[in-house]
Amino acid sequence: MPVAGSETYVIGVDFGTLSGRAVVVRVADGAELGSAVHDYRHAVLTEALPDGTPLGHDWALQVPGDYLDVLREAVPAAVRGAGVDPAQVVGIGTDFTACTMIPTLADGTPLSELDGLANRPHAYVKLWRHHAAQPHADRINQLAAKRGEAWLPRYGGLISSEWEFAKGLQLLEEDPEIYHRMDRWVEAADWIIWRLTGAYVRNACTAGYKGIRQDGHYPAPDFLAELNPAFAGFVADKLDQPIGELGDAAGTLTAEAAAWTGLPEGIAVAVGNVDAHVTSAAAQALEPGQLVAIMGTSTCHVVNGEEAVVVPGMCGVVDGGIVAGLWGYEAGQSGVGDIFAAYLRHLAPEFTHERLTELAARQRPGEHGLIALDWHSGNRSVLVDHELSGLLIGETLATRPEDVYRALIEATAFGTRTIIETFGRAGVPVGEFIAAGGLVRNALLMQIYADVLRMPLSVIGSEQGPALGSAIHAAAAAGAYPDVRSAAAAMGSKQTAVYRPDPRAADVYDELFAEYTRLHDYFGRGANKVMRNLRAIQRRSVSA
Amino acid sequence: MPVAGSETYVIGVDFGTLSGRAVVVRVADGAELGSAVHDYRHAVLTEALPDGTPLGHDWALQVPGDYLDVLREAVPAAVRGAGVDPAQVVGIGTDFTACTMIPTLADGTPLSELDGLANRPHAYVKLWRHHAAQPHADRINQLAAKRGEAWLPRYGGLISSEWEFAKGLQLLEEDPEIYHRMDRWVEAADWIIWRLTGAYVRNACTAGYKGIRQDGHYPAPDFLAELNPAFAGFVADKLDQPIGELGDAAGTLTAEAAAWTGLPEGIAVAVGNVDAHVTSAAAQALEPGQLVAIMGTSTCHVVNGEEAVVVPGMCGVVDGGIVAGLWGYEAGQSGVGDIFAAYLRHLAPEFTHERLTELAARQRPGEHGLIALDWHSGNRSVLVDHELSGLLIGETLATRPEDVYRALIEATAFGTRTIIETFGRAGVPVGEFIAAGGLVRNALLMQIYADVLRMPLSVIGSEQGPALGSAIHAAAAAGAYPDVRSAAAAMGSKQTAVYRPDPRAADVYDELFAEYTRLHDYFGRGANKVMRNLRAIQRRSVSA
Repeated sequence: MPVAGSETYVIGVDFGTLSGRAVVVRVADGAELGSAVHDYRHAVLTEALPDGTPLGHDWALQVPGDYLDVLREAVPAAVRGAGVDPAQVVGIGTDFTACTMIPTLADGTPLSELDGLANRPHAYVKLWRHHAAQPHADRINQLAAKRGEAWLPRYGGLISSEWEFAKGLQLLEEDPEIYHRMDRWVEAADWIIWRLTGAYVRNACTAGYKGIRQDGHYPAPDFLAELNPAFAGFVADKLDQPIGELGDAAGTLTAEAAAWTGLPEGIAVAVGNVDAHVTSAAAQALEPGQLVAIMGTSTCHVVNGEEAVVVPGMCGVVDGGIVAGLWGYEAGQSGVGDIFAAYLRHLAPEFTHERLTELAARQRPGEHGLIALDWHSGNRSVLVDHELSGLLIGETLATRPEDVYRALIEATAFGTRTIIETFGRAGVPVGEFIAAGGLVRNALLMQIYADVLRMPLSVIGSEQGPALGSAIHAAAAAGAYPDVRSAAAAMGSKQTAVYRPDPRAADVYDELFAEYTRLHDYFGRGANKVMRNLRAIQRRSVSA
Repeated sequence: MPVAGSETYVIGVDFGTLSGRAVVVRVADGAELGSAVHDYRHAVLTEALPDGTPLGHDWALQVPGDYLDVLREAVPAAVRGAGVDPAQVVGIGTDFTACTMIPTLADGTPLSELDGLANRPHAYVKLWRHHAAQPHADRINQLAAKRGEAWLPRYGGLISSEWEFAKGLQLLEEDPEIYHRMDRWVEAADWIIWRLTGAYVRNACTAGYKGIRQDGHYPAPDFLAELNPAFAGFVADKLDQPIGELGDAAGTLTAEAAAWTGLPEGIAVAVGNVDAHVTSAAAQALEPGQLVAIMGTSTCHVVNGEEAVVVPGMCGVVDGGIVAGLWGYEAGQSGVGDIFAAYLRHLAPEFTHERLTELAARQRPGEHGLIALDWHSGNRSVLVDHELSGLLIGETLATRPEDVYRALIEATAFGTRTIIETFGRAGVPVGEFIAAGGLVRNALLMQIYADVLRMPLSVIGSEQGPALGSAIHAAAAAGAYPDVRSAAAAMGSKQTAVYRPDPRAADVYDELFAEYTRLHDYFGRGANKVMRNLRAIQRRSVSA
């Protein structure tokens, strides 16, 4: 516990897709005293490198120096804004987008910073949403299924093109020279800690969810060799590294990093972490059965369980993946807020999210006569099929935009219910639903979720959940609390049962969910392959 | 034939849903010399009577005096515009919306014009799209199916709520006093002829298609009595009347009507007719296998056959229903242009039909990755189910308005192909497709239809097809030609094979049509009743 009479603080830094946010948090009670955001100078490179070198379809790169600018700019700005003495800061924790991968030398220097490599796309950071390694992921999945690899069911039966192995195999096969110059293939979540502490510690979370590390082992060399003989040493040569448990200290702040941030040299630096998972601590949702949904453009669901079981279509289950001592489960919906935004994009300017929400809120459940499938961006859980697409049934000449908008919200709620029921059937019962992320501000959406799930909805107390979660991990790493759980109990916050289901609405939604499930299974499980066929026809048409 | 050296003219008048159009046509060659439009003063009454008396849900009424204003205003204006001497006009013909029903006294006076009845909704004209008699239609269909009435298959197995019997039964049961004061229950198509000639002649077309007259008989008194004992005398007391064949003269112009129109007293007045059916003459499409599609907000398909066969889901087959001596078949798509308009209504102002068409025309078939079902206004042929609704599959975050717009056009083309294939399988082969109506101006739509149907598309020559068709019937009635066929040969016009199918596009559309058919049958033939269930949930929700 902090020394009485002497207030202490921790810093949480949330590295997102386009910017990093630093927040200054009081150790005693989690009060957020100041925050600052710094946008990455290069944002996301999808068309070309900074020097103009063009990029291929589905590429998404970043520039590692942009992350250090967050340490140099946002952290001091947050401290100034909080009005605290930097000398009272006792720790720093970070979270990052997951599976954002950096090729480095043995000392952590990114290859893109080496002389002569600035024009080589594979020398750069591959952002989580770099999707050009799909053919490599497909081969990994086919081979793993054929060989019956024991780790495959831990990922719902499929690994993603976003993950370390698919991106690494793409690198090897498309630019072997870069692959051979690369000493380490590093999660950005760990690279930033390496920059802060001088020590490279792999965090248990991404090593498990994205690095296919299960029961202490990565995929075996003979498996890798069967993918490509030159890939056999990938784990031993580029990947393997001591593991750090979440909430432990990875090391202490170096003099160099102290100069960047204005924080005291030698303070604790927590093991790296992931935005969604660290939010569980901020939401005081670390016990088994407490599901946190981080609802934004997409939704990530994280929940702890006592044991490892196979949940169809989950993104993964990892020992200590959310908090040490429990199995952390992750699932996801690949499109949520994105779907509403895409629908809004072409409507007349008088339609805004606020206006459509206001109009949709005047309706009773079922009044619009519509039902949708929320697969505009594919389906992550539980079908794991990115060839799927959206569906809308029930339009008439009288259908209005607010009708479609409400049906799309409901469809995402049905998608969430499908995930929760799948967890429950697999032996991971969900007892509490805690909402976080930008969509919690939409009261209509929250009420619809409560009605569809027939569960009270709790809401995270902080609007900066990931950064607060990182600060909580920093407090644990600094020894201010014995562990993340007790730190979360003191510093996290949530409001319980903010939205309660209306039984009559829930009855209507039960009927509609039965229709959703029937459509979900018919179009999603192979009885009618029209969505897949449409994609195939589309590809042929575009390339003709 | 007309007297040499003395040019003669005929007048065609097309009574639409919102206005009437008169056209002056040269008898010798069909040249359209002048035209004028008059909007109905009361348009369509859906909310209230002129005195404020409120109307129920799904009601649609008109005021009969508005039709006479067309004779008083549009006919003289057209003659003036044409610059012809009214004395040279030898005949007048008319067409009307079908199953627009007027309750009258024995002399044809509409009940709504009687003292004390101006506030009685059932005293007014029930427009074709008055849909409040659906429960009555349901009872008629159930009883007819139970009794195995021989006429039922002639209507594809179902009669519509729009037709004479359903509307008449509603009148009896909801306002028996009006029913008993009503001497005649008159098609507006025949009422207007009655006003012009002083003689009430039922035209063979609506008597057959809408009046359930088959092989010279209407439904029998015992059938009617089983619906409602007071309905037993409906045919004998209110409906039965001498039949006039299409293209014959119903009589000659009265002095009163000559004063309204400025035309010579005593000229020939053709038997009443229907907009879609009369267009066949204007398009020179009176031979077996020539299908005319009148494509506007909805599409009506008419085609002649040598014999009467049962075509699933057709609207009806009537002896002499299009031209004397052949069996006229009718089918329909209840929403076409309406669907595009409904989609456009909420988009940003920069999206117009022209702009969306221009953008959609840049795509190859299949490029948008979408497929739709064109049931936003229900399905008339071949499923005859107004509980069906729209469907759209394949939307992603990248889908643009022009993609959806093109998919909707394609869906209506697939709907047309379904009808044509159904006719072919039933023994009514379609050898030529002739397009008429407002949508023929959309070249992209026409090309898509040609590609989807894998048939060359002919296009009617006139932009005023129904009015020209009525003029052709007037010429036949006046004896200027021996029959409608020869009049049509001289006065009608079409361009043959204006749009030819692109074989590569047709191949892609064959694939997409297979997907359409699979969805059509799955959602339309009972395997998945989600559309019907959504309507039921919606009704409960709205009435809760």
